[in-house]
Formats: sequence, structure tokens, C-alpha cells
Amino acid sequence: MDIRMHKFSDKVPEPTLRRLPWYLSNVKLMKEQGETYVSSTQISRQINVDASQIAKDLSYVNISGRTRVGYEIDALIEVLERFLGFTKMHKAFLFGVGSLGGALLRDSGLHHFGLEIVGAFDINPELVGKEINGIPIYHSDEFETKMKSCDVNIGVLTVPINIAQEITDKMIAGGIKAVWNFTPFRIRVPENIVVQNTSLYAHLAVMFNRLNVIQE
Amino acid sequence: MDIRMHKFSDKVPEPTLRRLPWYLSNVKLMKEQGETYVSSTQISRQINVDASQIAKDLSYVNISGRTRVGYEIDALIEVLERFLGFTKMHKAFLFGVGSLGGALLRDSGLHHFGLEIVGAFDINPELVGKEINGIPIYHSDEFETKMKSCDVNIGVLTVPINIAQEITDKMIAGGIKAVWNFTPFRIRVPENIVVQNTSLYAHLAVMFNRLNVIQE
Repeated sequence: MDIRMHKFSDKVPEPTLRRLPWYLSNVKLMKEQGETYVSSTQISRQINVDASQIAKDLSYVNISGRTRVGYEIDALIEVLERFLGFTKMHKAFLFGVGSLGGALLRDSGLHHFGLEIVGAFDINPELVGKEINGIPIYHSDEFETKMKSCDVNIGVLTVPINIAQEITDKMIAGGIKAVWNFTPFRIRVPENIVVQNTSLYAHLAVMFNRLNVIQE
Repeated sequence: MDIRMHKFSDKVPEPTLRRLPWYLSNVKLMKEQGETYVSSTQISRQINVDASQIAKDLSYVNISGRTRVGYEIDALIEVLERFLGFTKMHKAFLFGVGSLGGALLRDSGLHHFGLEIVGAFDINPELVGKEINGIPIYHSDEFETKMKSCDVNIGVLTVPINIAQEITDKMIAGGIKAVWNFTPFRIRVPENIVVQNTSLYAHLAVMFNRLNVIQE
């Protein structure tokens, strides 16, 4: 859940970056419901975050609200989407077309949030040369060649944990700048490389534990 | 990323629960590499977490290490898997068979971590009555009937944000005790209901932002 980013501590804090998409989705919903202006107090009521925290988070985004009426909804949506990088398409390669990797290739929803997986790598002969959801699967040996011909700087890591570090090292040697790590393995990377860990299994562990507590 | 769980603050802290699966995967890897004992110092070297923190986290689990040699690997793996709930199968229903929902139905990997999705609900006539990866898709109207015949207490929420709250309310009214929320919407639930938020889009936002910082 963390980012190793010692050098950029003066930038937007990660908790703020994680909350902004909540505001965006809630504001979009209010727009659907016919609203044209929204205040941080209104957003606060929807999502159980303090209005002062919301105002502070939104101060990182280049938009100013008007006293009493708040932010203009259309402008806020546009500014948030641009700020969060959802309007620009970011190209990525996916490494490891197993169960989760295959599932992510099929999730076209990532497109709406600015991520386009343009190719995947695996060594399974039953997969190499095929396509999933229109995305070609290449042999892992082809990675360096493909890096040269594609403008890609994000790698999605969905390999088994025993090769997670090895594949990460290869990705970075090939020029990948950000790793979206779905494995439960804690990969090690140089300081200038962005890592975002999304461990579905860690979320399951928390959920199971809390459920047991309730049922005891 | 949070759990609303005011009443159970004396239980295992969430950060600990999120770190334990990292230890598990790293220890499994060491076992594959032929190790039979592992110390918190060794785990620490692998994953950049303080050895003292690891020892503290492991103190919640019912296992004791031996001075200088550490924990017996087989026992540690067994105890961690049981503690995290990965050895027991937890049944779940999935709500909303869109792009992400369909992808999760196809991810059989969740099985290995104790989650079995036994049915899905949607209103799309092209989906209702079909199966994905052997999992039947029912019409949403059938939810209450299916709840009575299946021993399910977890709901996976992958609907569009404009109906996220409405479906959550229905799930809880039907007897769901834990909601795994994949939408960027902040759902509101009664105090005794477990919520785990997994917003892939929030992770993308952080990654894009940090990448831009590097490239500036």
C-alpha cells in the first residue's frame, strides 16, 4: 500500500491522492443527480470524511470554490480527472498471464482511468502468440525488443512470487519506471522507481479476521 | 483502505493484518529455497520491514520462535495461513458482472486465499442465466432466495457507483456481513458490518502522480 518515494516528500501526500478519486466519483454522481455546484460540506456528508480535510485535499488541485456555493461541478470533475492522470492514456505491459493477470487483461474498466495495457508477457506456450481482450501475449524473451518499439513505462506484475523479484529487475533494466505490484511479495527497487502494491490477499485477510471477530 | 470497526480496537491492528500476508509469501519462498528455520531478521532483510516490527506482528499469531534459530518454517506457514483465514473457504456473492466483476469471477487465484465466489447477480439479460468460470449469474431479484439457500456472508461489490449504496443496503438487508467494495464510492454501512475498500483506481492515481513527478 505504500510508495517508496523518499525524494518527493514535498509533493501531494499519498493519503490525499487516494482520497481524491473518492471525491471524483461522488461528485460525478451528484452531477448525474442534477447538481451544478458542490461544497466540501456536501461531499463530506456523502463519504464520512471531514469537510476541512476535503477542502485541504482539494487545495492541492488547481481549483477554487466560491463562498457558500462551493465548487462548480463540471470544472471540479475536469480538474480532478486531469490532476489524477485519468484523462491521459498511460501505456503498460503486464507480466505473468496467470489467473489474476488474465483477469486484469479482461478488465477494460482500467481504460476509463487512464491505463492501457498494450501487451503481456509469459512463457507458457499455450498463451504466447494468443490475444486476450485484443491484447497480444508475447514470450518474455521479447520484452526488450517490445520496449524499444512501444512507449511504455508502467509494468503490471502478476507473476508467481518465486520470480517476482527477478521479473521486477528485468522490467527496470528494460526501462520500466513504475511497477504496479499485485503479488504479495515485497519487491525491492531502486529509489527512483515508483512501486504501488495492490495485494488483494491482504484485503481478504483483514476482511476474514474482522468477520471472525464479529461472529465470535 | 480502511475498516470501520470501532468496537474491536483491542483486536489485531489492520496494519499488522496487512503485513502478515507479506511475511507468509516470503517465508513460503524461503521454504522453496530449502530453508527449514527463519528468523525475523531474515524476513526483515527480504522485505524492508524492521525486524522488531516483524517480531511484534508475529506475536499476535500463536507461534514462538527459538533464540538464534528463529521460527520453524513449516509451522510458521501453517499457523499464518490458518490465522489469516486462507485455509478455510469463505463463500461470497458478487454484485455487478461488468468488466471488473467478470474479471474477478475469472480469477480462480482467490480460491487459494480462502474466497469462493458461489454466485453473481446482475440485471443484464445477456448475462443472467449464464455462467462465468463455472459461477452462475442470477438476476438481482433472486438475491434474497439465494441467500436463504447458500451459506454466504461476504458480498463483492463491483456495480456502477450510482447504485453502489442501494445495492449495499440490499446486501446488508439480505444478511451479508462483510462488503468487499471495489467501487471508488464510499459506501455507508451499519457499525457491525465489515467493509474492505479496494480501489484499483486510487492506486492508479498515486502511480500516475508519482510518475509525473519523476519525469518533471
